[in-house]
Amino acid sequence: MYAFSNRVETLKPSAIRERMKFMSKPGAISFAQGNPSPETLPYEALKSISAYMFGSNPASFLQYGLTEGYTPLRLTLRERMQRRFSCGEDFDELIIVSGAQQGIELACKMFCNEGDAIVCENPSFIGSLNAFRSYNVQLLGVDVEPDGMNIEQLEETLKKHSNIKLLYTIPNFQNPTGVTMSLEKRKAVYELAKRYNVMILEDNPYGEVRFHGEDIPNIKSLDTEGIVIYVGSFSKVLSAGIRVGYVLAPLEVAQKMVVVKQSADVHTNLFAQVLAERFMNDYNFDGHIAELQKIYGRKCDLMLSCMEEGFGDRVSYNKPEGGLFIWCTLPGDIDPARFSTQCAAAGVTFIPGNMLAISPTDCTDAFRLNFSTPSDQQIVEGIGKISAVLKAL
Amino acid sequence: MYAFSNRVETLKPSAIRERMKFMSKPGAISFAQGNPSPETLPYEALKSISAYMFGSNPASFLQYGLTEGYTPLRLTLRERMQRRFSCGEDFDELIIVSGAQQGIELACKMFCNEGDAIVCENPSFIGSLNAFRSYNVQLLGVDVEPDGMNIEQLEETLKKHSNIKLLYTIPNFQNPTGVTMSLEKRKAVYELAKRYNVMILEDNPYGEVRFHGEDIPNIKSLDTEGIVIYVGSFSKVLSAGIRVGYVLAPLEVAQKMVVVKQSADVHTNLFAQVLAERFMNDYNFDGHIAELQKIYGRKCDLMLSCMEEGFGDRVSYNKPEGGLFIWCTLPGDIDPARFSTQCAAAGVTFIPGNMLAISPTDCTDAFRLNFSTPSDQQIVEGIGKISAVLKAL
Repeated sequence: MYAFSNRVETLKPSAIRERMKFMSKPGAISFAQGNPSPETLPYEALKSISAYMFGSNPASFLQYGLTEGYTPLRLTLRERMQRRFSCGEDFDELIIVSGAQQGIELACKMFCNEGDAIVCENPSFIGSLNAFRSYNVQLLGVDVEPDGMNIEQLEETLKKHSNIKLLYTIPNFQNPTGVTMSLEKRKAVYELAKRYNVMILEDNPYGEVRFHGEDIPNIKSLDTEGIVIYVGSFSKVLSAGIRVGYVLAPLEVAQKMVVVKQSADVHTNLFAQVLAERFMNDYNFDGHIAELQKIYGRKCDLMLSCMEEGFGDRVSYNKPEGGLFIWCTLPGDIDPARFSTQCAAAGVTFIPGNMLAISPTDCTDAFRLNFSTPSDQQIVEGIGKISAVLKAL
Repeated sequence: MYAFSNRVETLKPSAIRERMKFMSKPGAISFAQGNPSPETLPYEALKSISAYMFGSNPASFLQYGLTEGYTPLRLTLRERMQRRFSCGEDFDELIIVSGAQQGIELACKMFCNEGDAIVCENPSFIGSLNAFRSYNVQLLGVDVEPDGMNIEQLEETLKKHSNIKLLYTIPNFQNPTGVTMSLEKRKAVYELAKRYNVMILEDNPYGEVRFHGEDIPNIKSLDTEGIVIYVGSFSKVLSAGIRVGYVLAPLEVAQKMVVVKQSADVHTNLFAQVLAERFMNDYNFDGHIAELQKIYGRKCDLMLSCMEEGFGDRVSYNKPEGGLFIWCTLPGDIDPARFSTQCAAAGVTFIPGNMLAISPTDCTDAFRLNFSTPSDQQIVEGIGKISAVLKAL
């Protein structure tokens, strides 16, 4: 009945959100979400900081703030990005956004005209794909191999399409595949973006959640030309509900993003920005991250050992070095829709792979399991139930 | 150097923000901002609520929330909109947004293709005008008379342009003119929107800040057809820094806005939503508003009496019944640029009218004064300084 704009007319709510309605069934176990583990939330620290903030100068965060963000938080993050990840040249600027999601949406609004294209991993983070779709941008998918994007496919795609404006990638523990891109491929991606004059949008929400292996340099750390927009987030290392993320990008890009953000929401909730800054500076942030990595590592290993025992060799899957997800592929003789329905009937839900793909006809034989949100007991029980369904099929 | 999209290429930072850099001059008095008065912030109540929240169930607001908002806040606002303003039919839905600014930006994204037009008061709220510009939307201005939009001009504009998708209006204590639209004109605006098949975007950030006269029904209360998108805000009645606003719109529009918001920032900061809900339900919200109205009324009357004494009859201005602003017009023999520069040199800043107009060649003889942010003493001193500049010119 209402005449919506072309860009939003066909937009659908996230499949995951729709899926989540199922999961309110009492007793159901959900491997579908991507919430941080409640065990990792630093309740006591945040409670103390909040009490201190309201007791000292509440007007400072109850009034309007600057669009580019709370200066002490920007400086703290900028320094950490440099010290811990060697990211950030003199020509770069760090600004605060309302969650990494906003940084991604604004980058698309800033660089893509309608009909332009973005090349990305297929499958990828559904929130980003939907943001790109909301600007009528064409999505060009590149397969994900065990060490990241298929570079030949990427180059072919860049060669073939002259309307590509952004190269979107999640190099660390990619959502949903759990894959980490090798250093060689990161270098190759950077060189190709440079050669084909495309900006890289590097999304790194899970970077700090590495529980096995060694850090691999972010693509942003290779950025001598100023072609990488790096997006980071507090959602997995502090709190998702506070909606605080950040963008490290060349000054001209960051300044334009500030102007566009001003129209979007004026500035990010100021209480949350001060809270994050105080936590980083007054508490042991690196120690908190180390604890959190242990928790996620334990939960991932638990799920993997349950899968090893229960799935046998019928389902293939990777062993991620970090992040929140395990990506599984069903054998050809199992009908994925039937499998998914039977699991739901048994009381376990997860996200079918094609819901996370560029086209619903891709990744139909895959599904994504999350190990951060469920309790240890739910992991054991839930994988047990999936295993029983597999055996009966 | 960077190839930005057409829609953001020419976007400029808000003139007010640029202006604010001047105002950091020590001792300068600013009538330029639109901050709520610090006297109106309920520090103690928010401190207690915050302590209670962190002491009871912090996981509930530190984890991801629903895109459409925190349900108890939605219900509370919905009920209040109905009880206090007779707004909201059965076909309407209320959702939470990250400040009214986000509701306005999303409405534009949802209804306007590039090249479409929005008709609005001229001058108007710069944040909204910039949001519309960020989608390459054509702005069609209608003059503001002492009782609101010039209805003849509005009808002519609607007749002439077939690409108008939204009619944007601030009926109560309009920013920047301070004008309140009469009930007759509200009805006429509604009828014209209906006849010309245009959605109304009713922006009401100041509605509760009425300190003289009687409430006039919102346009949304006339909306039997489902053509009004109403945008409300906590910025002027609780805190601007929390970035919480709300949209009351027909279900289909609200649902589409939820999908588009999901791509924009997933959801609004959850702590702020719970804080607002607790304040509304556990404290005397109506009493708080009544106190706040008294404070704004006192400050407005103080500024007006200083102006009456100091400006003489050289400057003409309205006497607003609410809101945050007084709109002034200079006589033809005063050069506005010279006036503005001399006031700044004397230590007082304000916003020149043409910075708030659709074109910088409009409203060149006007300027906007804010009375909510400065202290009473600053009001007396600042108006004194402007008066001295006027006398010397």
